[in-house]
Amino acid sequence: MKKLINSPETVVTDALAGMAAAHPSLSVDIENRVVTRADAPVAGKVGLVSGGGSGHEPLHAGFVGYGMLDAACAGEVFTSPVPDQIVIATTAANGGAGVLHVVKNYTGDVLNFQIAAECVADEGLHVERVLVDDDLATDSGLADGPGRRGTAAVIAVEKMCGAAAERGAGIREVAALGRTIVTRSRTMAFALAACTHPDQEQPSFELADYEVGMGVGIHGERGRERAPFGTADDLVDTVLTPIVETLGVARGDSVLAITNGLGSTHPLELHIAHRAVALQLAARGIHLARSLVGPYVTALDMAGCSITLVHVNDDLVTLWDEPVRTPALTW
Amino acid sequence: MKKLINSPETVVTDALAGMAAAHPSLSVDIENRVVTRADAPVAGKVGLVSGGGSGHEPLHAGFVGYGMLDAACAGEVFTSPVPDQIVIATTAANGGAGVLHVVKNYTGDVLNFQIAAECVADEGLHVERVLVDDDLATDSGLADGPGRRGTAAVIAVEKMCGAAAERGAGIREVAALGRTIVTRSRTMAFALAACTHPDQEQPSFELADYEVGMGVGIHGERGRERAPFGTADDLVDTVLTPIVETLGVARGDSVLAITNGLGSTHPLELHIAHRAVALQLAARGIHLARSLVGPYVTALDMAGCSITLVHVNDDLVTLWDEPVRTPALTW
Repeated sequence: MKKLINSPETVVTDALAGMAAAHPSLSVDIENRVVTRADAPVAGKVGLVSGGGSGHEPLHAGFVGYGMLDAACAGEVFTSPVPDQIVIATTAANGGAGVLHVVKNYTGDVLNFQIAAECVADEGLHVERVLVDDDLATDSGLADGPGRRGTAAVIAVEKMCGAAAERGAGIREVAALGRTIVTRSRTMAFALAACTHPDQEQPSFELADYEVGMGVGIHGERGRERAPFGTADDLVDTVLTPIVETLGVARGDSVLAITNGLGSTHPLELHIAHRAVALQLAARGIHLARSLVGPYVTALDMAGCSITLVHVNDDLVTLWDEPVRTPALTW
Repeated sequence: MKKLINSPETVVTDALAGMAAAHPSLSVDIENRVVTRADAPVAGKVGLVSGGGSGHEPLHAGFVGYGMLDAACAGEVFTSPVPDQIVIATTAANGGAGVLHVVKNYTGDVLNFQIAAECVADEGLHVERVLVDDDLATDSGLADGPGRRGTAAVIAVEKMCGAAAERGAGIREVAALGRTIVTRSRTMAFALAACTHPDQEQPSFELADYEVGMGVGIHGERGRERAPFGTADDLVDTVLTPIVETLGVARGDSVLAITNGLGSTHPLELHIAHRAVALQLAARGIHLARSLVGPYVTALDMAGCSITLVHVNDDLVTLWDEPVRTPALTW
């Protein structure tokens, strides 16, 4: 599998250099792999920081800017950022009103954000954390397991908490909002083909022509089960039904739906999947209040998509609609 | 090659239905495959219409909105829209100040836009055409050949002409601007892997692990030559050098650079390529005035990218910077 790179060792730093060239309005610390709003820290505003392994772009650096994140740190491909990076990002985002860490639920991310939070707490900085764990495929029901993985619901958390922070909400209020959004969000993904890590020759798993990987993860995790390949309508139904049932959304409820490309799935295909989402929600009497369609939380070049529903109310829709100006999300 | 579709026959209409669900602010005529600004026609404004085969999304429907296109029509995959569609789009875009057709140079597109222009001219509507022919790989130098193909420079034409139209420029002025942008633009693409048409099983061509397709087209055309696979820096140099030389841009000149993904190339890779563009321009003393990085003019799921340079001046940069609100381009 050919990749458009210079070497596996410089994938992340070379891409950050390209991001700096494309977006002179962002501050890109290539050495520490931290991307910051040019005007950070914004005095008196709660700072928002996220980060995680690379390979999921535009997540998270593509969401740095007015109305969303103040800073993001990028680990190596599919590898958590280290605590030092998170400390740098947190310090850069600190406008004196506290900093919110938006963390996807993976062991390394959770641990390293925790270490970083303890470091800056020693300096007197108030850090709250929102743990995003929307991936239904990893819901084991076990109280002592690692819990569900975090995936595309992180977009809703970063967007809506970012809007609340711009409005002047305090750190506890922004954190509570983020936790509310998490409880109202579920995601499930399916793959038509696996991804290939830039330092490997072979895909992370193999799928036959007649099968799809249901419940795949964004790090090339092979998924919960193999299911027969089918039409877009059928594949979407297979993931949408358990999401709807788990969230308990029903006739008269409103949702934000994110039809997210995992990397190499074409916009034509994503919109075909989103048509299925819209029709199946309508058939259940659920109101599709807002939509986001595109590759936002990718898994390198995996083919497939994830569907996220966020059970929204008027307040959440208003926060979603507020202005945002980042490389990947602007309105 | 699995595709996330319902059937090859409904790819375009199903995707348009998804687009309608995702963007209620656009008017989507699924039957005629025409996407229109919700507020079209804008009285007294020059209307902008484009279109072409599907499979290049977000081009063109993703560029319908304030500051860019008034209407776009979608042909079948890699197939020109028919004159009836173009007539519908042109009529919808007609605010009484004339309509500009932005046409990529392919025989079917040119012919069908010409037929449509003649139809509406019979109704007294003033239509001008800008023919976009930026693909350097197809520059045969022959006066009687089909000429160069049109590709990603169409984004610059649609964006800047759209801005001029919003400002109130007349039809002849907007058309002249478009033709100027075309003469100042060149593109070249390379593929790491070919695309697969939704009604076919096999890719449009095969590339070995050690080779890339240089000068590929956006309809799966196999390119001018096979070149050895190399680093992103080397591959970018191979396409950027002839573009710079053909445009005649030199030390002190300014360019807009579009590093465009052909479909399945990851944002990490596109930004690595864009770093190379930025460094190689800097080494030549050419000012990178503006950048656009992402999958904007795709060739289904082709892996690879195209590099476009537009030799800009202050006026063109100002037009590029003016507000735009479309599904794929917003600032």
